[in-house]
Amino acid sequence: MNGKRATAFVPGHVTAFFSAHPAEDPAAAGSRGAGLTLSDGVDVTVEPTDDIGAFAAGGASATDASAAGDGPAAVGDDAIAPITLDGEPASIGAVADVLAALDVRARVELETDLPIGAGFGVSGAAALGTAFAANAVADRGRSENDLVRIAHAAEVERGTGLGDVVAQARGGIPIRLEPGAPGHGELDGVPAHARVEYVTFGELSTEEVLAGDTDALTEAGERALSRLRADPRLPTLMDASREFAERADLLVPEVAEAIEAADRAGDAEGGDAEREGGSAAMAMLGRTVFALGTGLSDAGYDPAVCHTHPAGARLVDGER
Amino acid sequence: MNGKRATAFVPGHVTAFFSAHPAEDPAAAGSRGAGLTLSDGVDVTVEPTDDIGAFAAGGASATDASAAGDGPAAVGDDAIAPITLDGEPASIGAVADVLAALDVRARVELETDLPIGAGFGVSGAAALGTAFAANAVADRGRSENDLVRIAHAAEVERGTGLGDVVAQARGGIPIRLEPGAPGHGELDGVPAHARVEYVTFGELSTEEVLAGDTDALTEAGERALSRLRADPRLPTLMDASREFAERADLLVPEVAEAIEAADRAGDAEGGDAEREGGSAAMAMLGRTVFALGTGLSDAGYDPAVCHTHPAGARLVDGER
Repeated sequence: MNGKRATAFVPGHVTAFFSAHPAEDPAAAGSRGAGLTLSDGVDVTVEPTDDIGAFAAGGASATDASAAGDGPAAVGDDAIAPITLDGEPASIGAVADVLAALDVRARVELETDLPIGAGFGVSGAAALGTAFAANAVADRGRSENDLVRIAHAAEVERGTGLGDVVAQARGGIPIRLEPGAPGHGELDGVPAHARVEYVTFGELSTEEVLAGDTDALTEAGERALSRLRADPRLPTLMDASREFAERADLLVPEVAEAIEAADRAGDAEGGDAEREGGSAAMAMLGRTVFALGTGLSDAGYDPAVCHTHPAGARLVDGER
Repeated sequence: MNGKRATAFVPGHVTAFFSAHPAEDPAAAGSRGAGLTLSDGVDVTVEPTDDIGAFAAGGASATDASAAGDGPAAVGDDAIAPITLDGEPASIGAVADVLAALDVRARVELETDLPIGAGFGVSGAAALGTAFAANAVADRGRSENDLVRIAHAAEVERGTGLGDVVAQARGGIPIRLEPGAPGHGELDGVPAHARVEYVTFGELSTEEVLAGDTDALTEAGERALSRLRADPRLPTLMDASREFAERADLLVPEVAEAIEAADRAGDAEGGDAEREGGSAAMAMLGRTVFALGTGLSDAGYDPAVCHTHPAGARLVDGER
């Protein structure tokens, strides 16, 4: 090993419902709720660099950059934008924080088929994948719980997520019983897997929603979790998700329309057991609808198709 | 759905070291330690049967059998041996107990490439896979933690395992920080994956070992766990495993010889970082040696080859 790069894969995660649980310690803060991890996810490649300017974006002086420039590698665009998302320069605070926490200076390449900012946990996946890949390539010797804790805390502190990281570390269909990173939180899961279809109509501002009436949201989230704990089946998860979106007043018109269309298409086909709770729901927080089986394509949409993912974040090459 | 059968895959698990922690509540009992889950595992297919005789092996009277016999299915060999392992009738107490706990009457087919009774956690995999598949096919609506708890308790009560089930539910390279099922135990993991080779020289009696000097074993196991917690890397896991086997006086001659041969082969090649802790160790509890990379084939053995497995137990078809 002593490899020059390492890659981690982290599944996407759509949240079906949640309640927010702030805390002073970012490892203890988080959310309760449930969702689906997805075989569509994020590949995160970390490549260490000795170029100081490449790490401390915005913090590197000209002197630093020229001092590093006497190595064989020229200081080019990568030094200004050490994080790329599908080849384009990107700024993801939680990724920079994870690198800093592990004391790794590196270029981070993110590759994903998932829509950005639409409720798929891309920032959580980026933070968690960076933790796994940076630990491997720089041989930091952290345990999985440590890496999840670092990524979760970075997401919470940046305000970009509360529950995606712990769900994405676990895989499957995670139920977040208690909020927070390993050592604080507690997880369970729905023992199932499913074909998943999704359609996105655009972004939804997490900040805006969390600045609104969070009492109603929290009450609706806790109620949905109680329902799922009493009956940890997929149809109940979907039905609890729909009730949550209504009670928390989060449904946006395009999403509501798609959910209704999937319902009608399901009814027209007679419906099977999986549809009992409704086959489609809204991803929290995005203008996104996801459906089990063929709910959206039956309704005439042209959805992306994937599956629930059986495993959590993992190294895929270059690891120790 | 309402399928007539469901199949779960459960990875194999080689224990590198352990300490035993008995408790009155079988869900609280278990072991601390660490090991590798393997892509070689057990496929468990559960097919419900209305035939009462097929479920209550040994408990069915002739009257029961004939009463059930007026259905279309004849009462044949399957009624006497409702559990098969690679096509042969098998008796696995923990599997029967899991079915009873879920109130499911079923035929259970186990298929595996793993050696039996040689330290690969086949009985744990059978119990856990039965829990997942029976829950799915009979729509029992249990959560994953519930199913793990049921399978773990069955293994503990039958005396066939202490830590395999929780490790196999998690996947990866699990570290068992605290003993017991979800709600009691606590897990971490080594963030790595590896090619794994293994050779088996036969069975080793778990009962015999646990009837011996368990003080030395427990002390050695706790010491190994402390080492791995301080440095959660694969080479440390392998080295801690070897030290454990020596201190607990568990090494059998064929295994010791294979470990030494793998060492010599590694040294002859100059060795890479992965070999620092020794590339081979003994599986607890079996006359089995496992190695990372090509440790055993380099030494001239003809090992089975697999990989660490990224995911825990999961349904593979027929599930809801």
